[in-house]
Amino acid sequence: MAKEGVEKAEETEQMIEKEAGKEPAEGGGGDGSHRLGDAQEMRAVVLAGFGGLNKLRLSRKAMPEPQDGELKIRVKACGLNFIDLMVRQGNIDNPPKTPLVPGFECSGIVEALGDSVKGYEIGDRVMAFVNYNAWAEVVCTPVEFVYKIPDDMSFSEAAAFPMNFVTAYVMLFEVANLREGMSVLVHSAGGGVGQAVAQLCSTVPSVTVFGTASTFKHEAIKDSVTHLFDRNADYVQEVKRSSCDTILREVPSLCHLANFCSENRPGEKRGRQEHNYPAHNARISAEGVDIVLDCLCGDNTGKGLSLLKPLGTYILYGSSNMVTGETKSFFSFAKSWWQVEKVNPIKLYEENKVIAGFSLLNLLFKQGRAGLIRGVVEKLIGLYNQKKIKPVVDSLWALEEVKEAMQRIHDRGNIGKLILDVEKTPTPLMANDSTETSEAGEEEEDHEGDSENKERMPFIQ
Amino acid sequence: MAKEGVEKAEETEQMIEKEAGKEPAEGGGGDGSHRLGDAQEMRAVVLAGFGGLNKLRLSRKAMPEPQDGELKIRVKACGLNFIDLMVRQGNIDNPPKTPLVPGFECSGIVEALGDSVKGYEIGDRVMAFVNYNAWAEVVCTPVEFVYKIPDDMSFSEAAAFPMNFVTAYVMLFEVANLREGMSVLVHSAGGGVGQAVAQLCSTVPSVTVFGTASTFKHEAIKDSVTHLFDRNADYVQEVKRSSCDTILREVPSLCHLANFCSENRPGEKRGRQEHNYPAHNARISAEGVDIVLDCLCGDNTGKGLSLLKPLGTYILYGSSNMVTGETKSFFSFAKSWWQVEKVNPIKLYEENKVIAGFSLLNLLFKQGRAGLIRGVVEKLIGLYNQKKIKPVVDSLWALEEVKEAMQRIHDRGNIGKLILDVEKTPTPLMANDSTETSEAGEEEEDHEGDSENKERMPFIQ
Repeated sequence: MAKEGVEKAEETEQMIEKEAGKEPAEGGGGDGSHRLGDAQEMRAVVLAGFGGLNKLRLSRKAMPEPQDGELKIRVKACGLNFIDLMVRQGNIDNPPKTPLVPGFECSGIVEALGDSVKGYEIGDRVMAFVNYNAWAEVVCTPVEFVYKIPDDMSFSEAAAFPMNFVTAYVMLFEVANLREGMSVLVHSAGGGVGQAVAQLCSTVPSVTVFGTASTFKHEAIKDSVTHLFDRNADYVQEVKRSSCDTILREVPSLCHLANFCSENRPGEKRGRQEHNYPAHNARISAEGVDIVLDCLCGDNTGKGLSLLKPLGTYILYGSSNMVTGETKSFFSFAKSWWQVEKVNPIKLYEENKVIAGFSLLNLLFKQGRAGLIRGVVEKLIGLYNQKKIKPVVDSLWALEEVKEAMQRIHDRGNIGKLILDVEKTPTPLMANDSTETSEAGEEEEDHEGDSENKERMPFIQ
Repeated sequence: MAKEGVEKAEETEQMIEKEAGKEPAEGGGGDGSHRLGDAQEMRAVVLAGFGGLNKLRLSRKAMPEPQDGELKIRVKACGLNFIDLMVRQGNIDNPPKTPLVPGFECSGIVEALGDSVKGYEIGDRVMAFVNYNAWAEVVCTPVEFVYKIPDDMSFSEAAAFPMNFVTAYVMLFEVANLREGMSVLVHSAGGGVGQAVAQLCSTVPSVTVFGTASTFKHEAIKDSVTHLFDRNADYVQEVKRSSCDTILREVPSLCHLANFCSENRPGEKRGRQEHNYPAHNARISAEGVDIVLDCLCGDNTGKGLSLLKPLGTYILYGSSNMVTGETKSFFSFAKSWWQVEKVNPIKLYEENKVIAGFSLLNLLFKQGRAGLIRGVVEKLIGLYNQKKIKPVVDSLWALEEVKEAMQRIHDRGNIGKLILDVEKTPTPLMANDSTETSEAGEEEEDHEGDSENKERMPFIQ
């Protein structure tokens, strides 16, 4: 176990925190190997407090050392997920204290091994889940959250891989049991998880994918999604209309009965027996989808459930509808909790429906299911090697550009995953770059250090 | 299509209904081939109105003839299910009008084929689902609800087979995806579905079954259920206690970390990183079960959900807690609807849980999934032929004894399935048989015809 600099660690941290309160160390550059006392330093994105984009800044922090069972990873790339926006706003259940280093996934090279670690060597190319702290030059994380990557997988791909593909895989195959001939509705089909869902669906024969996404993305993603609808459309009607072509699928041998109804059939009285018309039943029951994957929440829960076919599964795995222009969202999580439509189990019984929720981070970090996830990652790497799946990377951003990157997600502008490339130098601001106010507006202007920031950031918060 | 006697059918029915208002035709006997006009007659159980046991009587009704796509079956045995009690009380969603002939499953011999029917011959031994009307000497039902039975399967077994085993199978393998090493909690483990669940679980390696059942049944069913609890016990505590032996199952290689906690580890500060102790996580998450199958409802919904492990599934498939001593339950269904605890989707998201409802009858008769069910029945017959499953028959009752049979279910006295044996003659009442009032008490005494019935029935309603 690395114990160097223990006595000075606290002093170091105080200095770093003071540093974090000032302007970000933009000139740090390189590998950030700036030493304070005995502890090495590194660049890291720091969230100073919950709120708007300007609560994020680049800072210098003490480099972590691996504990028992951990690996130290020299980070090459980090994944930016929607949950990171919610963290920034403090819009999650039981948020941690700030300041903190955000980020839950990254890729890089193993640099040191903690005690007890087996199966890894310095120099291994890996991707990993981290319980916060990913957006930094170095991370340490328990070995059960680390996975070796194929030689031909780039670090950007690797940082785009675990969160989205594991989420998609577990929802489709562990929670919902997707099989041949089924249909799936996925929102934000152009995003990281949406694209992963579409690709995994294509590995199962005859699966129909319905997706909602901003219309401007449709051209780019139309090959992966069978039916695309605009994200603001009445997708409930659209899905019902598109899915009802498969009439009489259940009872083809009796399709001629579709024309019989009780008024036409004299003499068929048999007491009070309910007349059963399988053909009619099949027409009604063919509307809808087998699986609904919802990252929006809000009123989409009720809509999603209404779209389910019998034995269909609705899965809530995000609440992007909670992310608005507000900066202080201390009560948004609670508000959503109370506003979301509650589900009556007896209604599920009457309609033969399934409703689930899925949080990969909770499964990993609170519920100890790392072993299950490792099995899933191995299957996914297999699919990658067979060229059946491949992460879609939207754009690469320097650590210093994290605000612009987040703005892009706020704008729902991305097709695929946004990556923080640790070795990328920030793109200089061009004279004609826009400085218009973003949608992720500030209710309280925080002017500390802003005058210098305005030149860096094309979008003013 | 059989059209004989169309013109006289209405007149016949009026005569039968008058007949049904009188004493039951107890002396009908034999095969009930009593002819009124051109229509043949048969014995059938009739529910005159919703309420107590005395609303049931044996009657004569016109024998049905098969329509297009239907089979006519000479019934040998009928299944008695808990749902039949709820029907009798009118305690279901959107109940049909009375009088009606109850019953949803039976077995027998094919006697006639409607037009368009292929694949069956007169004389075939079959079991079938019927949308009401099963408790009679003859039923007609669409061919997609009829299944041929193995030669060595008795009619009693066959009438005990479809409802319970299909329900158990679909819940375990289609809704919940039971796999090796998982655990299941099933209530009323001694009943028809409970026994079917236990048997199907034994076909998967290393599945632990927790069951609740009246203590007097435990000796008889202990071989099929791993852990048995009394039905009135605090099963939540019992299950948690029994299931937490599998600690550290997820991360055996780090079990030594169980002794480390933040107070013991100086110098491990790494900013605000949440300390993650996989070993501790595994101990907590090992409590509980993967699947909860609930036929009780009421407050068992919340309890069942609390017992789920991450990615576990709770399935509501009945509401036997609704069946009390009341006779008029017009509002019980509505009351249950409002009283049952509603589920918050965000809570499912935070805890990684799945909640479902399952109604086989709705799946068959309202939602057109006969094709799916046929596939399930075929698999089940395969398991029967391999001697891996075998219906447990509790007792055989004559049609005239349907009230006693129902009383036995009210009393939760059965181990396995109750069967109405159409050819059985009623057992004479012995001098020392009890006449004490049953639990299924009458709030309104209905004396019509009771003076003769008292001799027949050992239990007074």
